[in-house]
Amino acid sequence: MALIVQKYGGTSVGNPERIRNVAKRLLETQREGNSVVAIVSAMSGVTDSLIKLAKEVSPKPTEREMDVLLSTGEQTTMALAAMAIQAMGGKAVSLTGAQAGIVTNGIHTKAKISNITPDQIRKHLERDEIVIIAGFQGETEEGDITTLGRGGSDLTAIAVASAIGADICQIFTDVDGVYTCDPRIVPSAKKIQEISYDEMLEMASSGSKVMQSRSVEFAKKFGVIFEVRSSFNNNPGTIVKEETAGMEQVVVRGVSVERNQAKVTVAHVPDKPGCAARLFTALADAHVMVDVIVQNVSESGSTDISFTMNRDELDKIGDLVDRVAAEIGAGKVTKQGGIAKLSVVGIGMRTHSGVAAKLFEALAKGGINIQMISTSEIKIAVILDEEKITDAAKLAHAAFDLDVV
Amino acid sequence: MALIVQKYGGTSVGNPERIRNVAKRLLETQREGNSVVAIVSAMSGVTDSLIKLAKEVSPKPTEREMDVLLSTGEQTTMALAAMAIQAMGGKAVSLTGAQAGIVTNGIHTKAKISNITPDQIRKHLERDEIVIIAGFQGETEEGDITTLGRGGSDLTAIAVASAIGADICQIFTDVDGVYTCDPRIVPSAKKIQEISYDEMLEMASSGSKVMQSRSVEFAKKFGVIFEVRSSFNNNPGTIVKEETAGMEQVVVRGVSVERNQAKVTVAHVPDKPGCAARLFTALADAHVMVDVIVQNVSESGSTDISFTMNRDELDKIGDLVDRVAAEIGAGKVTKQGGIAKLSVVGIGMRTHSGVAAKLFEALAKGGINIQMISTSEIKIAVILDEEKITDAAKLAHAAFDLDVV
Repeated sequence: MALIVQKYGGTSVGNPERIRNVAKRLLETQREGNSVVAIVSAMSGVTDSLIKLAKEVSPKPTEREMDVLLSTGEQTTMALAAMAIQAMGGKAVSLTGAQAGIVTNGIHTKAKISNITPDQIRKHLERDEIVIIAGFQGETEEGDITTLGRGGSDLTAIAVASAIGADICQIFTDVDGVYTCDPRIVPSAKKIQEISYDEMLEMASSGSKVMQSRSVEFAKKFGVIFEVRSSFNNNPGTIVKEETAGMEQVVVRGVSVERNQAKVTVAHVPDKPGCAARLFTALADAHVMVDVIVQNVSESGSTDISFTMNRDELDKIGDLVDRVAAEIGAGKVTKQGGIAKLSVVGIGMRTHSGVAAKLFEALAKGGINIQMISTSEIKIAVILDEEKITDAAKLAHAAFDLDVV
Repeated sequence: MALIVQKYGGTSVGNPERIRNVAKRLLETQREGNSVVAIVSAMSGVTDSLIKLAKEVSPKPTEREMDVLLSTGEQTTMALAAMAIQAMGGKAVSLTGAQAGIVTNGIHTKAKISNITPDQIRKHLERDEIVIIAGFQGETEEGDITTLGRGGSDLTAIAVASAIGADICQIFTDVDGVYTCDPRIVPSAKKIQEISYDEMLEMASSGSKVMQSRSVEFAKKFGVIFEVRSSFNNNPGTIVKEETAGMEQVVVRGVSVERNQAKVTVAHVPDKPGCAARLFTALADAHVMVDVIVQNVSESGSTDISFTMNRDELDKIGDLVDRVAAEIGAGKVTKQGGIAKLSVVGIGMRTHSGVAAKLFEALAKGGINIQMISTSEIKIAVILDEEKITDAAKLAHAAFDLDVV
């Protein structure tokens, strides 16, 4: 008998019929001899409706009240899910974040979980009840309702799994798992059976938006093994866990692609301390989310600095970079959209040399020019012309034999 | 500086614009130098939508989960109201029933308030915040969410007013106050300025559905003075309080009318102990809500028993009464719809004789036949042909000079 946490996102509980399907799955899991805790999101569309209502009474709703408002979305789902289980003859009980003992700090709309006291959860599990918990929410020590921000329901699932010592945490979503590449780009992409936390993190930060990095980091920190799988079929998904020896035999786990990128290059930045800091502090102050930063070895007292970001972020920049460039005595600033990022990720590359060479060779054979290169211990990212990204992904995918995993 | 509790029903907070109006009124009340607590209902229509959702996942949702579900309605309103006040530059905070310290027993969907610990309410009032509390809900000692059933938000308002020692509790609704009669029936009906708890109770139980009896009883028990008034204008409403000497000078406070009634008569019920009990126990077991019961003095060992109810209740009866009548050896059972009840209410009638005579005389002059009569200390109710009820109400209203109050 295992203790299982299952998390169902907004699409999986998007209407009463889907909620009944979730109830059925939860009951089946329990009837297989397991203790079951479910974390549920708001029904898809509900959160947006609530935000719209808020905007109609206030141009800028306060974050405390926004949390009070939005937390009703998950509360609605949890009650409906419990009712659906009961209607099928099962035993279930719903708990809000507060009732489940999820205590957070007081940073409304993006609170951090500070601790979980799972007494209520345990009490109901002992009564053989399926415990349905509202995702995305908690309460402060003072009893104020908080929400956890983007990806909050995943985080609730991982944190609750950790607090109750669950054997596994299953994240049910609208995709089948983590793939070696986006199947819409590379049709031969395969579902990955097992992936390490670090690989999952690199995939997530490279455009595979299955889960927010935050939840993966939490799972890694507390050693929570989780599985990403579909709520619309019974296929096994992708298990995410600490790396094992076997994992490293695979050099590259997957290829991820991020379209719609832009890059900015500042030429002839004086090679003295503080220039780069001035530039990126100004960008941070303007809330521009910068992705890859590349600075090459200095030649003749000055260097070129390039950085990439989502195309949308470029609009926030305006003439900011030009002004900073002038202040620090740098040269020309060029801004360019229409680029994309391709990353190959794998813990195996730490011990296998030649991964970068193999990637560059594959791209070269396809006549694809590499504009920027950035590497981490388990990832190589290259910036390319967006028009070439599909070809590039297919070439990289084939070069690392991911089609036959 | 007064401490004021204001309650706004579902129609008063029915859409974002109305919520902004409520916010404005709360702010005005505060700016006049008062401390303000508001109790809000779910936006009209929201509760019905939630019930519909529940029915789609379960033919018979459990009451615990129904409470979890329905309580989100008031939580949504309270957040929106607080946001609206903040958007107007005011200070406000929203509290769920649980956060406001409203503790109830565990009878889900119709819980009774057992006590209120208003520490949080007081804390926020001391910070000059307008405190918005979700009506209709509380939590058990164990931390389960409960709802208070019909009229629950009024009850929350009265109970909170009592717990914090408010100077007045204002019940904002979609009517201007309590009238001497329904103005749709008697156009010359006047708004009553002051009415005693007992009169209000008799009016409420006689068809003036401004408030549930339950909240009035609670107010009477704890001496909470409250005012029923409209949220759509600034007219003073009707003050409900303990009777005063001045009040008794008015013999009859108002006339109330209940249409769509039905009556059942059981002829020749044997005049021995237990026969009436058998009949009304059977009706109670079938959840039939009986209103007036009349039994006349026994003649020749048997008597006729008549009782009235809402026309809808008659359908629940089926052949139940016929079966009981046969069992107890009674005679013919007649069932009749198309009747109505007219009541005249006033604490003054306790000390003024001839009220009944004056009513009967007025009706007789209009050629209106009285089918049944039932009286209490401060009420006389008569059952009439429904077609005559408008004429009867006008005649009674005029006979007691209510047009010139």
